[in-house]
Amino acid sequence: MAVYTEVSAEELACFVADYNLGELLSFKGIAEGVENSNYLLQAEKGTFILTLYEKRVAAHDLPFFLGLMEHLAARGIHCPLPLHAADGKALRELCGRPAALISFLEGLWPRRIQTFHCAALGAAMARMHLAGADYELRRENALSVGGWRPLLDACAPRADEIRPGLAEALDRELSALEAQWPEALPAGVIHADLFPDNVFFRRERLTGIIDFYFACNDFFAYDLAICLNAWCFEQDNAFNITKARMLLQAYSRERPFSDQELEALPLLARGSALRFLLTRLYDWLHHPEGAFVKPKDPLEYWKKLQFHQGVRGPSAYGLDL
Amino acid sequence: MAVYTEVSAEELACFVADYNLGELLSFKGIAEGVENSNYLLQAEKGTFILTLYEKRVAAHDLPFFLGLMEHLAARGIHCPLPLHAADGKALRELCGRPAALISFLEGLWPRRIQTFHCAALGAAMARMHLAGADYELRRENALSVGGWRPLLDACAPRADEIRPGLAEALDRELSALEAQWPEALPAGVIHADLFPDNVFFRRERLTGIIDFYFACNDFFAYDLAICLNAWCFEQDNAFNITKARMLLQAYSRERPFSDQELEALPLLARGSALRFLLTRLYDWLHHPEGAFVKPKDPLEYWKKLQFHQGVRGPSAYGLDL
Repeated sequence: MAVYTEVSAEELACFVADYNLGELLSFKGIAEGVENSNYLLQAEKGTFILTLYEKRVAAHDLPFFLGLMEHLAARGIHCPLPLHAADGKALRELCGRPAALISFLEGLWPRRIQTFHCAALGAAMARMHLAGADYELRRENALSVGGWRPLLDACAPRADEIRPGLAEALDRELSALEAQWPEALPAGVIHADLFPDNVFFRRERLTGIIDFYFACNDFFAYDLAICLNAWCFEQDNAFNITKARMLLQAYSRERPFSDQELEALPLLARGSALRFLLTRLYDWLHHPEGAFVKPKDPLEYWKKLQFHQGVRGPSAYGLDL
Repeated sequence: MAVYTEVSAEELACFVADYNLGELLSFKGIAEGVENSNYLLQAEKGTFILTLYEKRVAAHDLPFFLGLMEHLAARGIHCPLPLHAADGKALRELCGRPAALISFLEGLWPRRIQTFHCAALGAAMARMHLAGADYELRRENALSVGGWRPLLDACAPRADEIRPGLAEALDRELSALEAQWPEALPAGVIHADLFPDNVFFRRERLTGIIDFYFACNDFFAYDLAICLNAWCFEQDNAFNITKARMLLQAYSRERPFSDQELEALPLLARGSALRFLLTRLYDWLHHPEGAFVKPKDPLEYWKKLQFHQGVRGPSAYGLDL
């Protein structure tokens, strides 16, 4: 929710001249996305998004992300398409930062989730997973089970400031997940951050998926586990089983689940809850005073984690087994 | 540089339905403007700005501001035009806040000021002053000389944290301004906040003036004094006399200066520097820890004030007298 890099009109004009977009008509910083600087840019040839990649995104990962968007868009997935400049490059530089100009997607992200949103999301995610199958680049998921211990170590000394006993509870949960985490499940390229603000709709129709800057190779069902947490809990942290059923059923119509995936779902949901709990906890404890971005409440994910800990099997997510 | 009020897609759809804009196509928070929440809204019928007025703008002043934009737009001034909903109203309510939908202006605000910007600004400001002459509503300038003493009193106890001796120097300057401030000069509706981010250009052509939420009745030359400070100093706080000359000459071709206005200019420039120094100082000393908006450096205006204190007459601003 911030623009970090201030681009001058002159630098911008110089950058944009290589894309043959006609004259620039407007240029506004967007108050969305916490990792990068995003601008909405209107030119004679249309509307575009200009993204400057800030420090939190590793520059060596950018070819993976931009290539993935091109790969998916070419297979009919509605996602932003990076534009190539006159020199043929999609990944360029502006104000000393890696930068790309990408196509603009219409639609609004849903602030209040309804069941039809979950159904459309499930179907689109399955199609995205299938479309990514032959993508040639690979990127490990640095924020999967192997990445959580260092995060917890960095937070543990102060975790009890947030809630007494939290450090010990998280240590116990992480040990259980490390011991039981699946070795092999159907896998491929996942989005890994499919929160509602990354999915656009026009009325009931899903018009696009954005923000592929956490995309990586991991279990497909882990992407679903992230969405169970991000889309299927109400404001009061009550789990909405109808939303979960819509999500999973719509997904399975496009890509049926294996028995192993279904069995693993409660564990993956615990893992995904822990992953967002840990990164939020880290940001909460480490954000600089006076920072521009307000950190998100880590305890929201503590409550979600507790729900999944009480789940006995995948039928708790609305599936008829 | 922040969006304060989060508008849900449902509340938005309900609000926008009264304007006959067709279907909503996109809706993005804009990271510009520190006083209000601004969204860029694209619909089938065009692009618009949705503004939700936050606490710092007094609700009883909104009819003055919105009426002024309509008044000026009807007289050919390029400024945002508030839209009227089906009930005939331009000022409505959304998420418990006063809200208005206004037309979108093309153009980019200049990040690096060149002399042609200053000339275009001078001409446009003069035309705006003339066009406002028959506007029937009035609004006093709460941030003119009469409003500075309470601001200074609120800052004085801690002003020396910013710079040793600042409190006493500001008190001396304010006393001088209070004693010498003009009683009468050509006056009317002024913008009172014409900083570069409120003026849009396409190449060398000025395409619009925005953000009338400080507009008020005051001396015309005070608006020019604000722009001398906001447009005619370089990054290193050196005064650029060529920019000032371009600004003032272009203005005077549309509305010639009286002798009294010219004589008063150095004093008005000191006053305008003190006004922004005091509000910045206040925000600097009073902004809450962890606030979203980074306060602006008050000492920039201390240096500008010192320049004007050394000025012997209006010729220092590039005018041939």
